[in-house]
Amino acid sequence: MNKQNNNQELLALRHSAEHILTQAMHELYGADKVVMAMGPATDEGFYFDFDSGEDFKLTEDMFEEIENKMKEIVSRALPITKSEVSQSEARELFAGNPYKMEWLDEIKDKGEGITVYRTGDQFVDLCAGPHLDNTKEVKVFKLLSIAGAYWHGDENNKMLTRIYGTAFKTPKELKQYLWQQEEAKKRDHRKLGKELDLYVIHDDIGKGLPLLTPKGATIRNQIINYERELEQAAGFQEVWTPHIAKSELYKKTGHWEHYQDVMYAPFGIDDETYVLKPMNCPHHYMIYSSQIRSYKDLPFRLCEVGTCYRYEKTGELGGLTRVRALSIDDSHILMTEDQIDQEFKTCIKMVKDMYHAFGLTDYHVRLSLNDPSDNLKYIDDDGTWARAGEKLEDILKQSGLEYEIGKGEASFYGPKLDFMVKDALGREWQMSTLQLDLFMAKRLDLTYTDDQGKKQHPVILHRGLTGSLERTIGLLIEHYAGAFPLWLAPVQLQLVTISETEVEHAQSVLTSLKNEGLRVELDDSDKSLGKKLALIQKAKVPYIGIIGGKEATDNTITLKDRSGEQLTLSESELLAKFKEELEAKS
Amino acid sequence: MNKQNNNQELLALRHSAEHILTQAMHELYGADKVVMAMGPATDEGFYFDFDSGEDFKLTEDMFEEIENKMKEIVSRALPITKSEVSQSEARELFAGNPYKMEWLDEIKDKGEGITVYRTGDQFVDLCAGPHLDNTKEVKVFKLLSIAGAYWHGDENNKMLTRIYGTAFKTPKELKQYLWQQEEAKKRDHRKLGKELDLYVIHDDIGKGLPLLTPKGATIRNQIINYERELEQAAGFQEVWTPHIAKSELYKKTGHWEHYQDVMYAPFGIDDETYVLKPMNCPHHYMIYSSQIRSYKDLPFRLCEVGTCYRYEKTGELGGLTRVRALSIDDSHILMTEDQIDQEFKTCIKMVKDMYHAFGLTDYHVRLSLNDPSDNLKYIDDDGTWARAGEKLEDILKQSGLEYEIGKGEASFYGPKLDFMVKDALGREWQMSTLQLDLFMAKRLDLTYTDDQGKKQHPVILHRGLTGSLERTIGLLIEHYAGAFPLWLAPVQLQLVTISETEVEHAQSVLTSLKNEGLRVELDDSDKSLGKKLALIQKAKVPYIGIIGGKEATDNTITLKDRSGEQLTLSESELLAKFKEELEAKS
Repeated sequence: MNKQNNNQELLALRHSAEHILTQAMHELYGADKVVMAMGPATDEGFYFDFDSGEDFKLTEDMFEEIENKMKEIVSRALPITKSEVSQSEARELFAGNPYKMEWLDEIKDKGEGITVYRTGDQFVDLCAGPHLDNTKEVKVFKLLSIAGAYWHGDENNKMLTRIYGTAFKTPKELKQYLWQQEEAKKRDHRKLGKELDLYVIHDDIGKGLPLLTPKGATIRNQIINYERELEQAAGFQEVWTPHIAKSELYKKTGHWEHYQDVMYAPFGIDDETYVLKPMNCPHHYMIYSSQIRSYKDLPFRLCEVGTCYRYEKTGELGGLTRVRALSIDDSHILMTEDQIDQEFKTCIKMVKDMYHAFGLTDYHVRLSLNDPSDNLKYIDDDGTWARAGEKLEDILKQSGLEYEIGKGEASFYGPKLDFMVKDALGREWQMSTLQLDLFMAKRLDLTYTDDQGKKQHPVILHRGLTGSLERTIGLLIEHYAGAFPLWLAPVQLQLVTISETEVEHAQSVLTSLKNEGLRVELDDSDKSLGKKLALIQKAKVPYIGIIGGKEATDNTITLKDRSGEQLTLSESELLAKFKEELEAKS
Repeated sequence: MNKQNNNQELLALRHSAEHILTQAMHELYGADKVVMAMGPATDEGFYFDFDSGEDFKLTEDMFEEIENKMKEIVSRALPITKSEVSQSEARELFAGNPYKMEWLDEIKDKGEGITVYRTGDQFVDLCAGPHLDNTKEVKVFKLLSIAGAYWHGDENNKMLTRIYGTAFKTPKELKQYLWQQEEAKKRDHRKLGKELDLYVIHDDIGKGLPLLTPKGATIRNQIINYERELEQAAGFQEVWTPHIAKSELYKKTGHWEHYQDVMYAPFGIDDETYVLKPMNCPHHYMIYSSQIRSYKDLPFRLCEVGTCYRYEKTGELGGLTRVRALSIDDSHILMTEDQIDQEFKTCIKMVKDMYHAFGLTDYHVRLSLNDPSDNLKYIDDDGTWARAGEKLEDILKQSGLEYEIGKGEASFYGPKLDFMVKDALGREWQMSTLQLDLFMAKRLDLTYTDDQGKKQHPVILHRGLTGSLERTIGLLIEHYAGAFPLWLAPVQLQLVTISETEVEHAQSVLTSLKNEGLRVELDDSDKSLGKKLALIQKAKVPYIGIIGGKEATDNTITLKDRSGEQLTLSESELLAKFKEELEAKS
């Protein structure tokens, strides 16, 4: 639970840094030249939007000057204090600032109180906080970039100038963050995806609809194959369902009401209307309900990599990590309440195994619960929500996983565990999800016969193993910087010949290794070895197999890994080495 | 080419049988009591629609009487003769028959000539033929059933009475056909699909949209895995593409114009319109065109099991064999003209291997060519069509496959080979398709650089390995009567215990065989062995493994196949036996 306190402290620090930025701008350029609009603290730092008019252009060249002024304000050791003011006091404080006036109108409409934060007696802004107590605590900060931003994000409004910055508790953390940002640019999966020919987004197909090339599809299939292994061992049964269903179905399930903003417009077939499926659950329930089920059939675990279609705003689409066609490695487990414990544990184990295979070692869980005060989103009940929440927290405690609690973040049908995973750069991604569904079986009248011959409703566990294969592939490209481990690599071994005399032998090695199921390619062109190796380095293949005169004579391969380490092996030794590495998935 | 002559002869025979039926009806009940509407010869026999008014009901009880009258007409050895008549002569011949009048109106509108066929001087009908020369040649026929049918298939028209019958050249062929019909009812995949729990069609999901249950999905995955083996060995590269695309794309490809009747209505995303993909080709082309390609990259073979959505009329939907969501085991090979020969041969080999694995031994090819007189459907060219057609016929001749020619049955973009396959009952199904596409690369400006550095357009081979996995599963259920061979069987081995003392041992055998990758289930309930075996027989599992006291002691399994043959094996002997059978796919 330390996680949450830590986040709160960082948020306060960045909030205060943001106020110091605005104060510095006012002192340097005048409050009427750089009219303050608004800005928040974020997960990565803070930003603030200024209206500097047409004749005064803010540029990154000014950052040094601004940062120096900020340092000076920090050194003044000004107390930061909160106070509540009335609407008329606030309107006097921010007189002449149309942005603050609009803000105050909104607060008035909502009937809320107004708080302001003062930095000494030198600066004041409308703000809900939290803040640090004194400017002297803001020791480590940096301005990062400038961009245009419409007021309220609406392109009909005025374009303002947004200054991005960040703040940390220690210089080490800042340094780590800046390295991460720099490294992230190099690893950007949109850049690497193109360089390594992993996927294509084509305007003729549509936005947010990536096509996986042979190399990208290989990675996808490797993930699916591994997931199948885990699922078969755990007694899951794979099914296949189509990508559309009648609109009516989603009215029955309640998705129409709760999910409509992500669902696509329906289209007609004869006199019925159909939609692209936004999730796989109802399809799986229809398989469950197609036969009479008994308690002996439970837990009934269906799984499928099902491609779902969800609306995302064009501006939010990005490569593979935010798409409109997402393949969910989905499962629905229909079970008795007594089985919740065991089934969650099995799924947590699968998630952990998967992360291990991906070399993801740093993760925690967000336990999303209902907000008891929100009766509109959370179907009312008789303590079911509270009991279920406690049960999941219990399971988490037993699992030894670090977790935080998100009140009001649950789905409409039950509490859930979301896995937050840090990649090699320390950036956090939301991946797997395990959701408990307490209501849907009742709503759709899914039943089983218990050992007394009575009809009962099962509870349901929705499991997204990674959550979305597209997002996972995007994450992994960045996590591995394109240098995939052997089990995932589209090409596992790139053979090269040194001269023409080895070509025939190399081709027979190629065929033989291919027949063993390895993903091998051969460059037997007349390019120089140096040129060949440079090309391979760009392709980030795990192993290079050099076949020169000596290797051809001895029937060996000189194997070179990415670190440059080199050893000469016979074909069977190479196969044994690869087999071991593939089984370890490391 | 004998095939076609044979079909023409059968058609003439059935046509004449149909005229004899109508004559018999007139002689028995009066031409004004059973007004003749119309009826054709079909692939399976013939039918004729009569308007017998409300007060005279035709029933199957009358079949004996009608058949006897038909036999009598046959024995009269009446010559069947064709003649051309004018509109006014025809109107006099069929005076008082509103159906014939409507027919004559239509012929008049089209400006066509009128032919009639006379049976001796006793019967005459408006008919384009062909017919046999004499009623005495109609030796083997049978009336089959009666059903209601709207005039012109339109429910706003009058309901007529349709009499179905069939005719063959020999009694043996008729007997075979009747057995086939009887057997087909038992094997109906809609009946077996439910009994064996292979798929579900649910009204809440929609018509023509089957969901594959765990057992059905197992069969699907086995087929896909085998196809992947064939494809990997032949150098195909798997890709993955989404199920929708912009409507604009299909306007570019020409599908919008030629295929619109099978495409679903578009739906909007932001200000663009999208449709469900009716085929995978354009998606694959976009992957091809995402990089600069050289002649060294050809043949460029992409493959994908891509689910496409096509409109089929509700009345034509049927279980798995006619669906609205069809998963095409698709491939597109982009290549030079010089490579056509080799690539078609590779694909023909894959198709043959696949049929062998399915135990389908009787098939032929329909070579579909353009109709040079149809310039609207077949994009005009400078002899390309003719050259391509000759090339495909050449390939067919070399392959040793039996074939027939379908003029005017080609796709709009090139000639094709369709494989017509007979199942275990001798019924013909259209399966695999190999289509040569001569125009699309030019139309979409797909290019490669040839060895002279010049841009060229590749030709394309569209390959549907089975054509549709859903249809194939439906076909195979009926072909095998649900008794799938080991490699396809959802459950390969059903273990049963005889008494409670073996339960623990049997469970460890189950785990051990599952870990070896076998699809095994165990019935260790306290039901009697007889009851257990009866249940398994219904499930049509290839092997039963009995574990009684002796087996538990000796660490063996008594294996029983479907024919009842029995042998006692150790676990490793059983695994070796299964391995051999799985590799042989027999």
